[in-house]
Amino acid sequence: MKNSLGREIPEHIPGYKEFRLYEGPFKYMPEHPGAAKKIKVAKPRDNKVLASIDEAIEKTGLHDGQTISFHHHLRNGDYVMKMVVERLAAKGIKDITIASSSISSCHDFLIDYIKDGTVTALETSGLRGELGKFLVKNPQAVKKPTIIRSHGGRARAIEAGELHIDVAFMAAPTCDRRGNATGRIGKSAFGSMGYAMIDSAYADQVVLVTDNLSEEPIYPYSIPQTDVDYIVPVEAIGDPAGIASGAIRITKSPTQLLMAKYAAEIMEQTGCLKQDFSMQMGSGGASLAVAMFIREKMQAKGITGSFGVGGITGIFSDMVKDGLFKAAYDTQTFDTTAVKSFTENPNHLEISASFYANPWNNGPIVNYLDTVILSATEVDLDFNVNVITDSNGMCIGASGGHSDTAAGAAMTIVVVPLIRGRLPMIRNHVQNVITPGETVDVIITDRGIAVNPLRKDLLEKLEGSNLPLMTIQELQQMAYDMVGKPEEVKMSQDDKDIVAVIEYRDGSIIDVIRKPLDD
Amino acid sequence: MKNSLGREIPEHIPGYKEFRLYEGPFKYMPEHPGAAKKIKVAKPRDNKVLASIDEAIEKTGLHDGQTISFHHHLRNGDYVMKMVVERLAAKGIKDITIASSSISSCHDFLIDYIKDGTVTALETSGLRGELGKFLVKNPQAVKKPTIIRSHGGRARAIEAGELHIDVAFMAAPTCDRRGNATGRIGKSAFGSMGYAMIDSAYADQVVLVTDNLSEEPIYPYSIPQTDVDYIVPVEAIGDPAGIASGAIRITKSPTQLLMAKYAAEIMEQTGCLKQDFSMQMGSGGASLAVAMFIREKMQAKGITGSFGVGGITGIFSDMVKDGLFKAAYDTQTFDTTAVKSFTENPNHLEISASFYANPWNNGPIVNYLDTVILSATEVDLDFNVNVITDSNGMCIGASGGHSDTAAGAAMTIVVVPLIRGRLPMIRNHVQNVITPGETVDVIITDRGIAVNPLRKDLLEKLEGSNLPLMTIQELQQMAYDMVGKPEEVKMSQDDKDIVAVIEYRDGSIIDVIRKPLDD
Repeated sequence: MKNSLGREIPEHIPGYKEFRLYEGPFKYMPEHPGAAKKIKVAKPRDNKVLASIDEAIEKTGLHDGQTISFHHHLRNGDYVMKMVVERLAAKGIKDITIASSSISSCHDFLIDYIKDGTVTALETSGLRGELGKFLVKNPQAVKKPTIIRSHGGRARAIEAGELHIDVAFMAAPTCDRRGNATGRIGKSAFGSMGYAMIDSAYADQVVLVTDNLSEEPIYPYSIPQTDVDYIVPVEAIGDPAGIASGAIRITKSPTQLLMAKYAAEIMEQTGCLKQDFSMQMGSGGASLAVAMFIREKMQAKGITGSFGVGGITGIFSDMVKDGLFKAAYDTQTFDTTAVKSFTENPNHLEISASFYANPWNNGPIVNYLDTVILSATEVDLDFNVNVITDSNGMCIGASGGHSDTAAGAAMTIVVVPLIRGRLPMIRNHVQNVITPGETVDVIITDRGIAVNPLRKDLLEKLEGSNLPLMTIQELQQMAYDMVGKPEEVKMSQDDKDIVAVIEYRDGSIIDVIRKPLDD
Repeated sequence: MKNSLGREIPEHIPGYKEFRLYEGPFKYMPEHPGAAKKIKVAKPRDNKVLASIDEAIEKTGLHDGQTISFHHHLRNGDYVMKMVVERLAAKGIKDITIASSSISSCHDFLIDYIKDGTVTALETSGLRGELGKFLVKNPQAVKKPTIIRSHGGRARAIEAGELHIDVAFMAAPTCDRRGNATGRIGKSAFGSMGYAMIDSAYADQVVLVTDNLSEEPIYPYSIPQTDVDYIVPVEAIGDPAGIASGAIRITKSPTQLLMAKYAAEIMEQTGCLKQDFSMQMGSGGASLAVAMFIREKMQAKGITGSFGVGGITGIFSDMVKDGLFKAAYDTQTFDTTAVKSFTENPNHLEISASFYANPWNNGPIVNYLDTVILSATEVDLDFNVNVITDSNGMCIGASGGHSDTAAGAAMTIVVVPLIRGRLPMIRNHVQNVITPGETVDVIITDRGIAVNPLRKDLLEKLEGSNLPLMTIQELQQMAYDMVGKPEEVKMSQDDKDIVAVIEYRDGSIIDVIRKPLDD
């Protein structure tokens, strides 16, 4: 059967629950209640501090078939997932679902534990590296297709009870003996704990893994003591080199800079650059470079913005420091400059993934975005955007906040080079949809700009513009004229070869990732 | 039937749910899940700001038989409850349960709306003033007995789904148009919104009533936008004179000062006054005066405390300012000095009523208290404490955090004059139990001090002390010798004359308040 984007979805997906098909960004109105939290009774002066991960596994009674969760704020420096999975394997515990807010290439070690049956399912925002390759090539190595969710969709799934976490293992750069945890300080400080805040609020049991157990009360805290069952002090929760990269520099690529300039121009010419505007810039090269041009334009106009949202980079936190924006709402702090800002600047705020982007509450902050600038692995004639697979069907990315911000923002701009590696990036149909075209307003390439025909208002505002506006079809043709029409990759149509199910942020199925056939 | 304190409780209480009897402070282990939150879907740029309370009543669909909630941070200056109840009555809506975190004498107006059937039940921490008198004398004027809960017990009841709130009307001194609310700023700033944080997290619908709607983003926020359905701007949410009293002065009463001195001595002689100790002082005269003596002793010993908890007064916030304690955990800010501290001092922290005292989470802060000093309307030979009724059975107080802190603290000291108005304050059995004697360790009067015989460790530490230690029976006899043995007040034994059900913090029934018989 087909969903409203025309994506072919099997009636039953082996290993996946009963589901709804995607019908539109705000079509489904849930009538069931949310998840019920587990009730605990803590005795006065209970000791939460344990000697080891082993003891935490024993105390929580973790057993075959359960779901454990992690957060990805340690990015590619994370030690915690491996620490836990190794001990589970050593204890012979099998059939574990890993529900991590995302998975990086430092988690390639999971391949071994999938092979030995310790881990039999994954739920994540991103899938990449050797693990991505392994799963794309061997979908039957796990019991269930991987579930890909956006950051808002994951918060929703947890709060709605669709993703039930038995035990959350939460890396904590610092916590006190009662369990109040923060990412502000400590040798592994990474900033906001926005994803972890949801796991710890809803998991049946919460284990903090920390390399800085404080004897002093810790505040402000991202995770409160009232959510924490146990604390395991360890030598190191991550590799500093992988946790936070140094300040991200603005790209020097002429292609990226040109696209960034176009994006800033579009914002100006459509009237988005007004006093108290809000925006999110992705962490991709071109979308970050937009900041440079926006800054110039804001200073020239003498305006200031209200707030920025998202993964916060040093480039944005500097704009807050310089008074160009009043506040940054941060779910994930991207680099060392931003971590410093998060620690020092009261206008740099921590928010949970639910406050950021959960479509099922009274209004996440993405609902108040004026503009978001996003990247893509590829786009298509219907303005659908792929950020999870490449044109060959290999998993190389993450859903992230892409579809969340696109649905929430008044204007969604996607920036993508017209051609990458001699492949046109405007496809007839993207390999996989993460973000539906009906929530994407402008596609900017280095060779031209296409406005979604649904947005007549934007087209009117841009009438007479000096920008290289054209239809998406014209853009595609331009690419074909340069590098030729690409061949379609053939995918297995066997439902057992479904690698992953892509949930839209409301939990409906927007697409499935299938195994490419070797030719 | 009798509970474990020997209090007579009917098998069925008319108008009250099926219940458990109190068996001990940590006896009951719940196995059911907590409350499930209502799921919402907010559209981007939804407008939450309404024109009037009437419009909020219409939009929320508020109707006969529902439960609405309020918080009591505006204390005796609250305008919001009246604003709402008047409009419900004007619309002919009947049979409403008012679940307020507490009720002050400014809520005496409810008598009229009880008489006309608009309001038919109350759930609260406190009951006093004309309304208290009215209900004690006319228990059948309402459909159900009033439910008295501690602050921790109320948070528990909401989070466990026992107190289901249809619409929460939350007074907000300042909020932005998305619904982020704070009590820090605005003409009606009252400080911490600790009680309101629970209502807004769990109510089916949340209406903020504010007299300072900000066009700028508000942070830090006590209530997040994600919990807020509607916002109603009004002229004033309260009377500044009633909201926050000026700085509370330390008592000059020699009786109070003597008891305070004894309390500080007990703390010192039992070894509680050690580096990094924690404590809560109530807002009663004697318990506040303890601060003065503690300060002297701390300075003499050269020690500093870790944290203080509770309703925070200027007297305590000054100790934080002066570096005597590291932090104050605040659910309710008592006076203008403390409100200023709350706004300015990052070591003065806002906590929810659940973080404060909910017995059904992974450890509220009361579980980590070394000492709490509390007051009483009367005590008894079993060390049980009454803070809700006087010896004549009239409702004049509030459950507050009394039983919560007593259960959590390592040492609970209750301070009460031996005689008040020619009545001995040590009864054979208190008129009503709020706090069970097994959680009370020391009773201090102006004529002598009794240590609970259960606390052999404390008795040992106090051996050889110069303090006037005696048994509770000796203390009672001393009072009898001075003013004679009081007559017992006769109470109606008709179960229809049950005025209120007193829930212990775990939801079990610790006592009922009955109508006194006229003689």
